[in-house]
Amino acid sequence: MSGGHVLALSGGVGGAKLAAGLAAVLPPERLTIAVNTGDDFEHLGLTVCPDIDSVVYALAGLNDTVRGWGVADETWQMMGMLRRLGGEDWFNLGDRDLAMHLQRSAGLRGGETLSQVTARLAAALGIGAAVVPMSDDAVRTQVLTEAGWLDFQRYFVGEQCRPVVRGFRFQGAEQARMAPGLAAALARVDLAAVVVCPSNPYLSVDPLLAVPGVRAALLALDCPRIAVSPLIGGQAVKGPLAKLIGEIAPGGEGNALIANHYGTLLTHLVIDRRDDADAEALRGRGLSVTVTATLMRESADRERLAREVLAAIGME
Amino acid sequence: MSGGHVLALSGGVGGAKLAAGLAAVLPPERLTIAVNTGDDFEHLGLTVCPDIDSVVYALAGLNDTVRGWGVADETWQMMGMLRRLGGEDWFNLGDRDLAMHLQRSAGLRGGETLSQVTARLAAALGIGAAVVPMSDDAVRTQVLTEAGWLDFQRYFVGEQCRPVVRGFRFQGAEQARMAPGLAAALARVDLAAVVVCPSNPYLSVDPLLAVPGVRAALLALDCPRIAVSPLIGGQAVKGPLAKLIGEIAPGGEGNALIANHYGTLLTHLVIDRRDDADAEALRGRGLSVTVTATLMRESADRERLAREVLAAIGME
Repeated sequence: MSGGHVLALSGGVGGAKLAAGLAAVLPPERLTIAVNTGDDFEHLGLTVCPDIDSVVYALAGLNDTVRGWGVADETWQMMGMLRRLGGEDWFNLGDRDLAMHLQRSAGLRGGETLSQVTARLAAALGIGAAVVPMSDDAVRTQVLTEAGWLDFQRYFVGEQCRPVVRGFRFQGAEQARMAPGLAAALARVDLAAVVVCPSNPYLSVDPLLAVPGVRAALLALDCPRIAVSPLIGGQAVKGPLAKLIGEIAPGGEGNALIANHYGTLLTHLVIDRRDDADAEALRGRGLSVTVTATLMRESADRERLAREVLAAIGME
Repeated sequence: MSGGHVLALSGGVGGAKLAAGLAAVLPPERLTIAVNTGDDFEHLGLTVCPDIDSVVYALAGLNDTVRGWGVADETWQMMGMLRRLGGEDWFNLGDRDLAMHLQRSAGLRGGETLSQVTARLAAALGIGAAVVPMSDDAVRTQVLTEAGWLDFQRYFVGEQCRPVVRGFRFQGAEQARMAPGLAAALARVDLAAVVVCPSNPYLSVDPLLAVPGVRAALLALDCPRIAVSPLIGGQAVKGPLAKLIGEIAPGGEGNALIANHYGTLLTHLVIDRRDDADAEALRGRGLSVTVTATLMRESADRERLAREVLAAIGME
């Protein structure tokens, strides 16, 4: 694969699939994956970083492809006992997954930054690409609902996305500093592309863009900035995005909504074949549009899509 | 079962069996089990209390009777991932057991005392008797070996008791305050008996006796104080006691060693049939001696022995 360094911006499950595809087709020293930490939270004394874990598990080949999140071959023995003990059981922590949270939390308590502990645990799982949090400072996504502000995991897991959403905020973002690995990737003279993975724009990518300096640095780049749309057939593949779009931006705009949302941050957009009808209007806005199959069921899909994304920006 | 309140002093596995027997034969409001916390330690950011857990699991009927420690139907998925992540794997934490450590640690971090969190978790498992730590302050048993002082779990689990032991200390004991539940039990006007469970005198009972005020309060009682010897056939049933006795007090003194160790703290001693030959000498020291089968394989053994202990001091 020719060309320079690639910076991918990723949220959780959907983004992690493309991140894993990029990791499969690029040499490790040519890939930095900056991950949303707005979904992170403290639970049972553990620091849980769902999106970092999704990316790490996907890159390590440990992700559960059937359930769609968490670790393969997972068991739930701790949760069973936790319920007997009267513990908070609204958030499922698998037994294998717990090792990650325990190791991370012990590292953070011992003085490691989130960047350091993430790098150490990713390396232990044999991951060569740089997986970096967007920030080592706490940024916490909150969702404004009819019932007031809810912490993201309370909305997403606790309330199963039932409350109608009116807005978001990323607490701590204004004071957060870009993580060293993200700042370093943005400053590389050989940075050849930014790939916005097919993650939720509002909940997974916006927190990344809310970290001071990230948006300006992206806009100042003269390399291609390409997103894979998270929509297929005008709808989100899974997760709360489909419901959210109806609540935040009703009217069924499809990929125009994605293009509007990212604006001049994007030079290129990859959309699914089922949304081929969106292509002409998107091109009319000055975007370079690639139409292909964007659903990633298997690792072959992830790698093919990663290659097509890189090909779309001239990195064959 | 006639009579007043019973205060049992217990360490881990062996002690927990008799504690469970006492809980089975006494109404819950008539039993306080004060548990050694000298073996407690911090691991992966969790506060692990092995002896409290052994007692709680035994009383809840959740103890693994085959392995002899921990929770029944345990799995080790977290440990498997922890190893892959390069984590500290010298201490085995089972998946089900983790719920206890997570709940306890979150409670302690949230401001609960060890007494409060222990009472809450024991109640959640349906335990009626009062299970109380010896102290809410940290007391940490250390073992003097040829290689210097080792934290107890490093010696016991990490080094598998291999180093030759020259002595013990209970760090923090001098400043520790008796836990409220232990102090309350010792102050009861209806306190009818103290039962020293068949735990390691040096490692499980001595830490309890090292908490300021405990030894003096026990000596000041005018009720029977009965121990079940942890020796069978002159040897410890399991654990490091057999090896320890050879190192600390060579000469094969059998139950005389136990009697010497506790001295006037005991009025009664229960010994195993195989040590019948010890009985006369023990009686000559003024101890009331009961000879019976003290090995507890099944719950029926635990209850029979508990009844015999209570009968030996007139609580039929």
